[in-house]
Amino acid sequence: MLPRGRPRALGAAALLLLLLLIGFFLFGGDVECELGERGGERRGPGSLPCPLTPRVSADGRPRGAAAVDGDPSADRGGRNRSDCVPPRPPLPKCELLHVAIVCAGHNSSRDLVTLVKSVLFYRKNPLHFHLVTDAMARNILEMLFHTWMVPAVRVSFYDVEELKPQVSWIPNKHYSGLYGLMKLVLPAALPPELARVIVLDTDVTFASDIAELWALFAHFSDEQVIGLVENQSDWYLGNLWRNHRPWPALGRGFNTGVILLRLDRLRQAGWGQMWTLTATRELLTLPATSLADQDIFNAVIKEHPGLVQPLPCVWNVQLSDHTLAERCYSEASDLKVIHWNSPKKLRVKNKHVEYFRNLYLTFLEYDGNLLRRELFGCPSPPPAGAEQVQWALAQLDEEDACFEFRQQRLTVHRVHVTFLPHEPPPPRPHDVTLVAQLSMDRLQMLEALCRHWPGPMSLALYLTDAEAQQFLRFVEASAVLSARQNVAYHVVYREGPLYPVNQLRNVALAQALTPYVFLSDIDFLPAYSLYDDLRASIEQLKLGSERRAALVVPAFETLHYRFSFPSSKAEVLALLDSGSLYTFRYHEWPRGHAPTDYARWREAQTPYRVQWAADYEPYVVVPRDCPRYDPRFVGFGWNKVAHIMELDAQEYELLVLPEAFTIHLPHGPSLDISRFRSSPTYRDCLQAVKDEFHQDLSRRYGAAALKYLTALQQPRRPA
Amino acid sequence: MLPRGRPRALGAAALLLLLLLIGFFLFGGDVECELGERGGERRGPGSLPCPLTPRVSADGRPRGAAAVDGDPSADRGGRNRSDCVPPRPPLPKCELLHVAIVCAGHNSSRDLVTLVKSVLFYRKNPLHFHLVTDAMARNILEMLFHTWMVPAVRVSFYDVEELKPQVSWIPNKHYSGLYGLMKLVLPAALPPELARVIVLDTDVTFASDIAELWALFAHFSDEQVIGLVENQSDWYLGNLWRNHRPWPALGRGFNTGVILLRLDRLRQAGWGQMWTLTATRELLTLPATSLADQDIFNAVIKEHPGLVQPLPCVWNVQLSDHTLAERCYSEASDLKVIHWNSPKKLRVKNKHVEYFRNLYLTFLEYDGNLLRRELFGCPSPPPAGAEQVQWALAQLDEEDACFEFRQQRLTVHRVHVTFLPHEPPPPRPHDVTLVAQLSMDRLQMLEALCRHWPGPMSLALYLTDAEAQQFLRFVEASAVLSARQNVAYHVVYREGPLYPVNQLRNVALAQALTPYVFLSDIDFLPAYSLYDDLRASIEQLKLGSERRAALVVPAFETLHYRFSFPSSKAEVLALLDSGSLYTFRYHEWPRGHAPTDYARWREAQTPYRVQWAADYEPYVVVPRDCPRYDPRFVGFGWNKVAHIMELDAQEYELLVLPEAFTIHLPHGPSLDISRFRSSPTYRDCLQAVKDEFHQDLSRRYGAAALKYLTALQQPRRPA
Repeated sequence: MLPRGRPRALGAAALLLLLLLIGFFLFGGDVECELGERGGERRGPGSLPCPLTPRVSADGRPRGAAAVDGDPSADRGGRNRSDCVPPRPPLPKCELLHVAIVCAGHNSSRDLVTLVKSVLFYRKNPLHFHLVTDAMARNILEMLFHTWMVPAVRVSFYDVEELKPQVSWIPNKHYSGLYGLMKLVLPAALPPELARVIVLDTDVTFASDIAELWALFAHFSDEQVIGLVENQSDWYLGNLWRNHRPWPALGRGFNTGVILLRLDRLRQAGWGQMWTLTATRELLTLPATSLADQDIFNAVIKEHPGLVQPLPCVWNVQLSDHTLAERCYSEASDLKVIHWNSPKKLRVKNKHVEYFRNLYLTFLEYDGNLLRRELFGCPSPPPAGAEQVQWALAQLDEEDACFEFRQQRLTVHRVHVTFLPHEPPPPRPHDVTLVAQLSMDRLQMLEALCRHWPGPMSLALYLTDAEAQQFLRFVEASAVLSARQNVAYHVVYREGPLYPVNQLRNVALAQALTPYVFLSDIDFLPAYSLYDDLRASIEQLKLGSERRAALVVPAFETLHYRFSFPSSKAEVLALLDSGSLYTFRYHEWPRGHAPTDYARWREAQTPYRVQWAADYEPYVVVPRDCPRYDPRFVGFGWNKVAHIMELDAQEYELLVLPEAFTIHLPHGPSLDISRFRSSPTYRDCLQAVKDEFHQDLSRRYGAAALKYLTALQQPRRPA
Repeated sequence: MLPRGRPRALGAAALLLLLLLIGFFLFGGDVECELGERGGERRGPGSLPCPLTPRVSADGRPRGAAAVDGDPSADRGGRNRSDCVPPRPPLPKCELLHVAIVCAGHNSSRDLVTLVKSVLFYRKNPLHFHLVTDAMARNILEMLFHTWMVPAVRVSFYDVEELKPQVSWIPNKHYSGLYGLMKLVLPAALPPELARVIVLDTDVTFASDIAELWALFAHFSDEQVIGLVENQSDWYLGNLWRNHRPWPALGRGFNTGVILLRLDRLRQAGWGQMWTLTATRELLTLPATSLADQDIFNAVIKEHPGLVQPLPCVWNVQLSDHTLAERCYSEASDLKVIHWNSPKKLRVKNKHVEYFRNLYLTFLEYDGNLLRRELFGCPSPPPAGAEQVQWALAQLDEEDACFEFRQQRLTVHRVHVTFLPHEPPPPRPHDVTLVAQLSMDRLQMLEALCRHWPGPMSLALYLTDAEAQQFLRFVEASAVLSARQNVAYHVVYREGPLYPVNQLRNVALAQALTPYVFLSDIDFLPAYSLYDDLRASIEQLKLGSERRAALVVPAFETLHYRFSFPSSKAEVLALLDSGSLYTFRYHEWPRGHAPTDYARWREAQTPYRVQWAADYEPYVVVPRDCPRYDPRFVGFGWNKVAHIMELDAQEYELLVLPEAFTIHLPHGPSLDISRFRSSPTYRDCLQAVKDEFHQDLSRRYGAAALKYLTALQQPRRPA
């Protein structure tokens, strides 16, 4: 609070004195009431209109932070007409702020992202997130932050498993399980040099600059170590129902959804021992914690009231079932943090829930790409990888006709892997994952695909943040989809005008967990038996171990959009003869699949080998470690052809399976294919990319790659 | 600035004195630099670190608001460690704030919406928008605000035509044309009782609470009438190029993208005469205004420097081509308003343009529905119509299986009519508008539809705010679409899980401007000749004037998604015989079109009358004043059937046209139809809606409606 250096301290002291005198002279001595009233804001009992730091009163109730008090520092209306304003805590320009969050599992990871978006939206400081996670959450969040590339944001991970032993002995009834209790061990878990941290639950949403919260550390007296907002329900008063026996607390107690921790002082004070003793003692008479860490924090505070710095209620507006929060927000000029601390979350009943829901949805659906904003004020190193990308982008010529293409393929998309709960398949030596990618307009394919393919799937979805939420609701509404635990959905966030088809394929491919992958497209439905057939063939053919091969699944198409799916090869042949089934793209681009040799397939009883030929793009099964797709191919055209060419260059055998088949269903033309057909530039740019690709190919495979160049000589429509 | 009432004034004076003394005692007299430095902020030359009100210096340059100064009132970092803070102007809790904007045409209307969204996002006060508009903008914005239903927002319109004469005599070279100049006449145009107003250009974006800007009125001295931010370019210094002769201005002059106007004082001071005199005089030597109103405001201010209250630069960060804005925003802790005042707008070149673009895109793509938030703090009457809706919604039972249905049909969707530039068709007695509705997944139909239908179209698009921008880019990228001026696109913003098909149809129908409408669906392509045929038939059959009839356009479908469109009835018959064309929904729902009597159509040379039958849902041409669709039908099912039933109840003849035809193209199943097929509840709810509809029908048409009920007796799949 006081400026450093003696002379200033003197001056400050002198000034405070003078202020009081003036207050006296101006307002007849009653500074508090006068200031309060002149601020034009009604105030509740026991609150201080103009606190310098809130105080804890005899009964231990935090008077400065009583639920009706609003936020003194934000309460401008209350101050400005007075001619001298008690200082608001300084906003620490460019200071690095530390935030700790405990996060486990797929659903909490989604919540955390929404919380982080709300923090980033208002922040003006560099941030360091300290994430205590399980393996799932870490896998998701590491990739997410790595691809998000937000300037002036650092992330560190801490393994929840290592910390569990320290809290697992505590019986706990709260829905947050052990994870809630983790907050107790942060002083030990976080780096010893870290002195201060803001601790947040994943179910809070920011509506203001987190630096304003950090600034409240300045209010801490020398003995205070924990900043908390009063609990906005009567839970700890123990009068909610008969025989309701809550843990001990000061008055209403405090809520631990938002915590300011002075880690340095907690360590000095032997925090670990302190809370363990209290918990052990209380557990002699109480069966378990009901509200996890919150019960224990409150019990400790009840013993040592001096430890707590009460925070203004607006920094943790609690929408629990029996909330009294309205006393807070109806008075406050400004809401700072909303806390969805009811198990019902957004479905909680509350007179104003619509208002809070809107704030939450704002960030749930907010385009996270827009948060990739530099902080001018505070120069900071660019995020890993960002520099190269920016450099490459800077090299591009905006006048170049293919600018869009070159820009699109340089774009780094935010990736949220396993967006929904997912169980990794048990390790089986011949298991196959179906790999595909889609955008919103193909969602209705998912149910049918699940019926045709019981095995694991790894699907990349190209969505906006808002569409990702629609997708979530779509899956929840579908019995078929919500029943499946072995389908992994990876959200790749939209950016740029062209569909990054090969980047999407690579994301889905990289996330496949079985030794083999079936590289398919979303508009294809495989034979019901394909999953079993493939695993059998892989085993018989000793794929991977002894021979390097790609198994070709012959592709067909129907032009009818009502269609009864053939249950056997015999039925396929019958439909072919009756003309209601064709080999894939038979009419407009036979070259794409001709080498599969459908005539031979008719007769084949065993797998047969075929030779690569120009423009061949079959659907294949390969080991997971196969070459990646070339990300330069965006939008429509040639993206699979290049991949097959690379397989051939690496001398994969191409083996056609005699019983396997997959069928393409009709759909309206995609926007990209329409653009390809309508725009000559589009075709020219594609040609340019193809040429680059061939140059690289010959560079990497030398003479062996010559045949691809010669094959390219006679120009023709790309597929 | 000074508090009202003598004793306080005394106190304040005393306090100021004391502050200076303390400053002296603390920092050896150099208050300015010390305070500045202690705030941890570097400061530029000529700025005042701690101004009470900015001042205009001898050379006329507003020192308090010099471009490097940042925002004194927001500059907390610079203040808080000092022990006494100069008061920030009070935020007027719940005071009604007035905002005036000049807006003309389709594109400005879209800009205005983005500006308004940014204002509403941060606002905490009731707002009254005063919109000076042309007929187009008024038509768009009246409907938009009416359907937006934002609490605590009032809108008034003023006709630009009435004001033009007052400024049309001024020669002007600025791209804003006459509309820029309109700002000069606001004191006369706005209601005489209106004392203060904030005037905004449509190309500004707010990044903060507009009440903070309004609060700056408190800085005005008694003679000051206009608050402006200094111009952030050297334009008015006249040294940009040789022979560059700008209008006279104080130093760099001021920018008029953001203006605070004391209307009361301006009226007293005879503003109208004042600026007219100055303009007339300058125009003796200058050929025309280059920057419209801004030149004239600056010329007047040059003469009367006392009139202007310079505002902190952050309230109008100007991204013009030669901007010096970086001096402002790189120092400021906080940006308040961004001004895209380059003709290049978002494509302007600027080191930090990405940052600003992100802020702009935030609101461009922000879901406007989320701004329907009440202001707790400030009780205000609900917007027109909102009360009934809320009441009806409150009556719904969340446990009811059809809750979603009932909720969806009560939803009031935001509607932005003529989202893109559009020329109303010239009045012709027999002209026909094609009416249809679509969502994002059918965009690719638009080009084909335009090729098949040269006449006017009225299309309702069901989109999110973000999708509306994708749609905009899609049209801009298409030569076919951008060439068409007679296609009106009406955006209905998404809300709720079910597709409000009939509400969309009614929006498109209500916006059709020709005497007749062809009620079609987006997946149908009409015969190339249909537009001409229909107008001819309407004339021959003396539709409307003498007979009340609906012309039936026979509907067919192809199951092939590659298909060469028949150019004549003869070709249609040939395709029917060859089995590559069917009558519409021949396989799964023949009842829907059977009454059209295709057998008779084969032979027909002249229009023939057919009788209504249960479940008949033909595509028809009717007078524009036909009955509306029943909005209770949402999602899939029975929505057209009900409408045809109502036409029949109103005794429309059903006349089938002998040469007309329209063909349905295949597409993947919509999500709604999938849900219909999979969910029994969905079907039950639809049945419930049908029953309600029939009850109303018999209520309205009495005995005549009996046949519909009897027809309903035998239950069957709805279409």
